[in-house]
Order: sequence, then C-alpha cells, then structure tokens
Amino acid sequence: MMQPAEPEASDQITIEELQLAARNHGMPLEALRYEITPVGLHYLLIHYDIPAIDPGSWNLTVSGRVRKPLTLSLDDILSRPAVTLPVTMECAGNGRARLSPRPLSQPWLSEAIGTGEWTGISLVGLLSEAEPDVSAAEVVFTGADHGVEGGVEQDYARSLPLDEAMKDTVILAYKLNGQLLPPQHGFPLRLVVPGWYGMTSVKWLRSIEVVSEPFRGYQQVRGYRYRQDPDEVGEPVTRIAPRALMLPPGSPEFMTRDRVVPRGPCRLEGRAWSGWGPIERVEVTADGGRSWAPARLGSPPGPTAWTPWSFDWTAEPGSYVLMCRARDATGREQPMMPEWNVGGYANNSVQRVRVTVAASPA
Amino acid sequence: MMQPAEPEASDQITIEELQLAARNHGMPLEALRYEITPVGLHYLLIHYDIPAIDPGSWNLTVSGRVRKPLTLSLDDILSRPAVTLPVTMECAGNGRARLSPRPLSQPWLSEAIGTGEWTGISLVGLLSEAEPDVSAAEVVFTGADHGVEGGVEQDYARSLPLDEAMKDTVILAYKLNGQLLPPQHGFPLRLVVPGWYGMTSVKWLRSIEVVSEPFRGYQQVRGYRYRQDPDEVGEPVTRIAPRALMLPPGSPEFMTRDRVVPRGPCRLEGRAWSGWGPIERVEVTADGGRSWAPARLGSPPGPTAWTPWSFDWTAEPGSYVLMCRARDATGREQPMMPEWNVGGYANNSVQRVRVTVAASPA
Repeated sequence: MMQPAEPEASDQITIEELQLAARNHGMPLEALRYEITPVGLHYLLIHYDIPAIDPGSWNLTVSGRVRKPLTLSLDDILSRPAVTLPVTMECAGNGRARLSPRPLSQPWLSEAIGTGEWTGISLVGLLSEAEPDVSAAEVVFTGADHGVEGGVEQDYARSLPLDEAMKDTVILAYKLNGQLLPPQHGFPLRLVVPGWYGMTSVKWLRSIEVVSEPFRGYQQVRGYRYRQDPDEVGEPVTRIAPRALMLPPGSPEFMTRDRVVPRGPCRLEGRAWSGWGPIERVEVTADGGRSWAPARLGSPPGPTAWTPWSFDWTAEPGSYVLMCRARDATGREQPMMPEWNVGGYANNSVQRVRVTVAASPA
Repeated sequence: MMQPAEPEASDQITIEELQLAARNHGMPLEALRYEITPVGLHYLLIHYDIPAIDPGSWNLTVSGRVRKPLTLSLDDILSRPAVTLPVTMECAGNGRARLSPRPLSQPWLSEAIGTGEWTGISLVGLLSEAEPDVSAAEVVFTGADHGVEGGVEQDYARSLPLDEAMKDTVILAYKLNGQLLPPQHGFPLRLVVPGWYGMTSVKWLRSIEVVSEPFRGYQQVRGYRYRQDPDEVGEPVTRIAPRALMLPPGSPEFMTRDRVVPRGPCRLEGRAWSGWGPIERVEVTADGGRSWAPARLGSPPGPTAWTPWSFDWTAEPGSYVLMCRARDATGREQPMMPEWNVGGYANNSVQRVRVTVAASPA
C-alpha cells in the first residue's frame, strides 16, 4: 500500500533559489555509507563568493577584550599542537524547501549534512593565551567572504558566548580529512564548533575579537533567528536538532529518485545525530507510522559525530514510504511534520523514502 | 543603463528538478580563478547513485570483437605507464534551465564545468593490446551505476566510434588532481574523453566491449540526442560547443547573485573552451552587445583544457550586463540566444553577468 508522502515543496522554486542550489550542494544520501564524508560530498553553503586568499600573507588576529592581543601566521598555527576531531555538521537551513510557505533562500531538502575529520588547534588554548579580561562576554569570528545580504554590505561574521567558545571541542581547523582545507571549506583556516549548526563555523577566518556586549552583526541579529513574524526579535539558532537519515535502499529512478528494491531481506542503514546530546534511539516504520520498530545503534566515530544505525526489513512486493526518526538523550525527538519559521531553519521533520518492491524475486 | 538580461528559467522549477540540483552541483563561477579545479568544485552529474565499489575485488574486462580479451585488476592498471592530462569537461545539459519551455532534467544554469588533471592509462594502448578484429566498429563502456531511466532499468553505458576511442588523448583515469579518484568522480577507474561532453566519460568503469554494430543502449539512442520532437531519431550529442565564462567581478548579493563592483579599473577574467578546436577569440561587451571588444587570450594548461582570457574594463557608475563570447578555430561561435532541443543539450548562449557600479569611489 502506498503511504502518504512527506509534504513537499511546491513546484515553484524560483530562479534565484536555483542559482543558490547550483552553487551550493548537499551530500548525496548514498554517501551516508561513509563514516567520514569524502571531500566533495560534504554539504557546502557559501553566503557570498569563495574568497581568494594568499596563505603567505594571510594572518589571524586575536584582539578586543584581551590582555595579550595576538597575530598569527599560518606557520605559527601549523606549529602548534594539533587535534583531530570527526564532526557532523548540518546547515541550519536543511529541510527549508519542505516548508510551506517556503522561505526564499538556499532550498535544501534534507541533504545539507556531512561529517568531516577536522584537524586544527584548540580555540580555548589560543584564547587562554590571549587572556580575555573580566569584561569578556562573547567572541566574534569574522571571515574573508564579502557580500551584500538583506541590504547590508558585510564580511560574514558570527559570535559565540564566551563559555561556548571556551569548550575544548571547538577548534580552528586547517585540514579536512587529512589534507589542507579545500578553498570551499575555508582555506586556510576555519572555525569548527561541534554540535552547532554550520553557520557558526565561520570559514576563511581572519579575525577573532573578544567583546563585552552581545554582537549585533547581521548574521547574529537578522539571519539565523527563529521567528514567526519578520519583525520579531526571535530566538537565536544554536545547536543542531536531532535527525536520522536513511541511505536510500535499492536503486533510483533518475528523475523522481524513487527507489526500486528487490524482494527479500533488505538491510536499511543510516546515521543519526543531535547537537544536544548523544543519540539514544532510532526507529523505523514501513507502514506510514502506525508501527515503529527500534533500529540497532552502532558506535559513532567520536563524541561529536553521527551514530550509525541499521534495521533488517523484509521487502515484500508493494509500495512503501520508509521513515526513520531519532531521539537524543535530552528527550528531543524528530517531529512528523515540519515546524515553520520565517527563515526556514531547523526543519528536522522525518525523512520519507518512497520504495517499490517488485513482485518478481531479486 | 540597465541592459536586457538573458532569458531566464521561469520561476516554476519542480521538486524533482530540485532533488537533482541538490545532489549534483556545478562549479561556483568564482572557481574560474583556478586553472585546475580543486576537488569538490568540479561539476558533478550522477545519473543514479554513486556505487560502492571494493577496489580489491573490482576488475576491468576488455571483451567483444577482440583477439585477446583482457581482465585487469586495479593493480594491473596502476602498474602500467601513466599519463596525466588536464581536461576541461562540461555537462551536455549545461544551460538547460535557461531554455523555454524548459526540458525537465538536471536544471543547470551555466556552471556545469570543471577542469581536472586526470592521471591514468592510455585507452589506445589497452585496446591495441586486446587487438580489435576487422569487424570492430564501436567501443562500449559500461559503469557500475545502476538505476531506472525512461522506464528502462540499466547500468550506465555509452559507446564511442572506434576511431574516436583510438585517439591518444583518451584515457582510463584513476587519479584526479594527483589523488585517487573520489567516489563521486568514478572510483576506482573512469573513462576521460577530452573534447566530448561529460556523458561520454563513463564513471565507475567495469567493462569495455568492442562491438561491430552501433550500440543501441538507452544513453546512446534515447538520451543525449539533439531532437526537435521526442519521436525523432535525432543526431547524437558529441563534442563540446564553444563557451566563454566570466569570473563574476566584485562581490555578490546573497540571494540575487547580482554583483557590486567598485568604480574604477576592473580586470574581467575568465576561461573559454571548445571541443571542436582551439579557442581563437573571446570578446566582451558592457553595452548589451552594441560593441564587442577582444579579450587577451592566455595559454591553456594543455591542448584539451580551457584558455584563460582577460579584459580591462573601466567601471563607471551605473548598471550593466556584462557578456563574453568565444569562437573556436573551426569558426563555431556562441549564439546570443539559446537554441532549443527536447533534451536541453548544449545551450551555449552567452553568459550575462549583472553588475552595479556605485557612484562613490572604491
């Protein structure tokens, strides 16, 4: 029996959304098979242009409410002790194109994810060396990417509360998957903040400023807020809501991406994550949500990366909408239906995978 | 004065087109600055799923109308003499989303391009070793990607006429930009056919078959044909039509991607290519095509790769639509307006870049 599918984007994607979709890209969901996402498959969201940076003349400044301002060359950074951390990152706009009415921005469906193995230096080590003074409240990270957004000309910049910036999993990364950062991921240096949506992890980093007042930059007070009305102040977008995704089983139809699965035993696999706590449970349904069965959970490659799951399904002839949903240790769970907001952030409603199982044996 | 812009895709992109656009991706045009496109920025068009291939058990067969059929392991291939070649590749569907009515498939605007430095073995060497017999007419290349398209379940497969397959620039590549192929570019081995649209360069290659009759596979006789009517036989899509693209100057507005350029001298830069012959001329206009001025041409990184060009423009306050167009040594030149066909192939009409120059000095 065919189950009702997820509410879908209306067939009116605009040329401006398409321009963004052609530049930025998601992770094809079959790449859920990789514990660490290969370079080129990790999602990318770039607000302006990828900047051209000469690593020889580039440097990073640490300034503001600190006793010892610092200026570091790339060599200075490469000579410091390195840490490597697998981190699952997700765009705050993931799921946006499934909202109705659809907020106009990068039109993600559900693929704006990836797990990189990031190598860099500890941010808390660097900040401690600079010695924030007693007035320090936030840390502002500014990148080299420059453009106009919402009528405001800007360099991309975001802040973190001081206590979040001082967590020992926050790094300044110069390598992805063992190689120097590709240009599109922030060469030569970027912030990586595990557990937070990707807008936090400022790419092409050029300055770190410790400030005593909440940062009022565009990406902090206008972009990346949960609002029901454009005039609200809204709440800031911060950590990643839980999500499970399934590696679509079988093989696809080119245009619809619907799946054809051979009859018989079919292992469903995927990964799940949350920025709020460890994944505690993943469940799967093949009957439209009337019954949910628990998936087996595997071990994540690290405390800040996704948890693999699997579920043995017996594929009997018919049409199905397979779904999966995750719950984390804080009790947060994916909703069946999207929760709308002006910016289209954090739509973690459950994935639907349309599958047909043919009557003939595999 | 504002110039008329290129005819644009209607604002009715469908969810199915969006699904493809979220998986596949183009090269952000600022990456025209790189002579060799970094991994992850080269365009990608994957018909079905990226297959999971175990390189240990993978092999390549050469069979059919040959005297000495071959089966090679990856180690066999890696032990043969290697050649490295920069190749500019373009999707045959590039420009499709600017056609009207719009053929429904991957909705490319103009970014489905890239230049990789491919390392592999010579195909002619391998074919010569297998000794095609006198009946040999075409060579069929079959990949491991599997799916349904146009109602036909298939492994992706394409053929080349024997004389094209025997050209010494055709390679079986196992490296891109000095590293083993990423999964999405055809690991462990792919065909690379310089000068032909990308559908020719079969990824995840697993068999090469020499045949005596024209190949009748889906991608040969239904996909990738120039047709004015779906019932026509049509002409095959083969070599890449000439195109010049401009690195968009200045900085972008997030949503529209329109450019803001400071007043004063502005060097316009880009690259141009054709699969039919060397680039002979690139011209630029800032007045809507009333006057075209020649750009300076640089040297391509190799005979099968794009030619850099530049043009010194003086940016006076106002709004502009900058355009560029290429002509190759065979006399083929880009048209101002798209030429429609059923599949939406080879729309190489000239790029338009909307630019505003502010009245204040830079």
